[in-house]
Amino acid sequence: MSLIAVGTVAFDAIETPFGKTDKVVGGAATYITLAANYFVKKSNLISVIGDDFPNAFLADMESRGISQDGLQVKEGEKSFFWSGKYHYDLNSRDTLVTELNVLADFKPVVPESYQGCEYLMLGNLDPNVQMSVINQLNDRPKLVVLDTMNFWMDIALEPLKEVIAKVDVLTINDEEARQLTGEHSLVKAAQMILNMGPKYLIIKKGEHGALLFDKEQVFFAPALPLEVVVDPTGAGDTFAGGFIGYLAHTGDLSFQNLKRAVIIGSAMASFTCEAFGPERLLSLTTDEIDNRIQKFVDLVDFDILLVE
Amino acid sequence: MSLIAVGTVAFDAIETPFGKTDKVVGGAATYITLAANYFVKKSNLISVIGDDFPNAFLADMESRGISQDGLQVKEGEKSFFWSGKYHYDLNSRDTLVTELNVLADFKPVVPESYQGCEYLMLGNLDPNVQMSVINQLNDRPKLVVLDTMNFWMDIALEPLKEVIAKVDVLTINDEEARQLTGEHSLVKAAQMILNMGPKYLIIKKGEHGALLFDKEQVFFAPALPLEVVVDPTGAGDTFAGGFIGYLAHTGDLSFQNLKRAVIIGSAMASFTCEAFGPERLLSLTTDEIDNRIQKFVDLVDFDILLVE
Repeated sequence: MSLIAVGTVAFDAIETPFGKTDKVVGGAATYITLAANYFVKKSNLISVIGDDFPNAFLADMESRGISQDGLQVKEGEKSFFWSGKYHYDLNSRDTLVTELNVLADFKPVVPESYQGCEYLMLGNLDPNVQMSVINQLNDRPKLVVLDTMNFWMDIALEPLKEVIAKVDVLTINDEEARQLTGEHSLVKAAQMILNMGPKYLIIKKGEHGALLFDKEQVFFAPALPLEVVVDPTGAGDTFAGGFIGYLAHTGDLSFQNLKRAVIIGSAMASFTCEAFGPERLLSLTTDEIDNRIQKFVDLVDFDILLVE
Repeated sequence: MSLIAVGTVAFDAIETPFGKTDKVVGGAATYITLAANYFVKKSNLISVIGDDFPNAFLADMESRGISQDGLQVKEGEKSFFWSGKYHYDLNSRDTLVTELNVLADFKPVVPESYQGCEYLMLGNLDPNVQMSVINQLNDRPKLVVLDTMNFWMDIALEPLKEVIAKVDVLTINDEEARQLTGEHSLVKAAQMILNMGPKYLIIKKGEHGALLFDKEQVFFAPALPLEVVVDPTGAGDTFAGGFIGYLAHTGDLSFQNLKRAVIIGSAMASFTCEAFGPERLLSLTTDEIDNRIQKFVDLVDFDILLVE
């Protein structure tokens, strides 16, 4: 059940129609590990930061069982910084600032202590970095999940396709599925992507839920309609963390259990939307998580009588 | 279980990224009654057409049990005509042509034979026309469902609010729910709308499904991911027809049964998207409908084990 998460550990500054925040801690691997560690006792981080990253936050992650053996700290350099502004519907956003800083020449190193891990979550990053991690592992993990985005389809499509060919699960959004295949129908796009290598595809649709495909089946997980959505930043990463964390916890890779993992990921992501940054992920109780999952059960619960 | 449907019977010319059509039969009441009559033996149409409308189509509707006592035919005038072009994502569209023709001075008349009807579907129309139908009924129906759109919020908000105050169920899309309330959160917007009069609110989200709210509960019905979407025109009206048709058929107005009706409406709407105009609605079999409903059941089916 050991888990590796690769991705950014960084700062974000975010503006939404409902508020704004100065620099807060963010980054894909931050959200992934914080969410996953509600399900696994231990996870292994691979990332890079500058010397400007708050030690208290690192200590808190460590205390949650997030190993930092694979976290590089570059003295005299700054952590990755992203700033963005969301549109009114929260489904789209403009990037205001991207400062790569330590990420510009990130060469991930898999420490010896991480070898033998069974679950690998490749958070959104340069596909060459993602591939490097795969290549450094002595044994192929039981499950490799890949997250990516349109940016890499635009500038690094071939390396991205090589990584896609090597993973078990790909998670992207609906526009990205269409971009990757040139096909409008998500059903057809899904089959084209599954023919590129992955056994499973998850299409994330933000406030509209998520679809899980394999070659024979499709499952739809709704998003919970929330009374207050403050900031969706990190929701996709939180989803990925909850998803792979639950699978690592249960060790069951059947389609039936992947469906459950998609619901768990969606439930965890709904918390992240309720505050700026990873704040909500730092203080959840098992009761809160169970109650949230129950809301998903209730949300789509119906029985039907067929027509005569 | 008798049902009245008010709305346009008209012509559409439609262009989508996947094809275009010359004038075809369309109109809200056309889709509503065609869908509803798979569940009720008889429905009662209130609308207006010119002398250019094809008799064969009217005869076909009559043969399906759609009464035309309340259909006005204006000699020497033309039927309502709408032409539109869909954007690539099919969730938005531009109107190219609107010719009101007979609709410009439509004064609906409820024939004596329709009195005593228990189910009233007010398709998208001028709210003053919708109110006129309500006022002409001697007895308040058991259930009144109202469909409307942003156009009437822009130019006839006060009359629209008066109609909304008199109905049991309002169906609008997510953007319209936000426009009507000035509230971004659909959860909050729903409660504000329910305070305007209706007992139930259905928020239609096209390819992203539909939400059913009352003051205590929320239910989410997915849209079926379709391999081929040809033309979404009439999908919302088909949804409404399937929804009210199923309720009229079963006579059960519990929240549990409204959930079923939302699934039925969604299933019927999925057929309409598969071809231009109401073509698919003209030839469905009970088996096809049952199989489609089963796909909705399978799509959201999961069981979950709570965390520890």
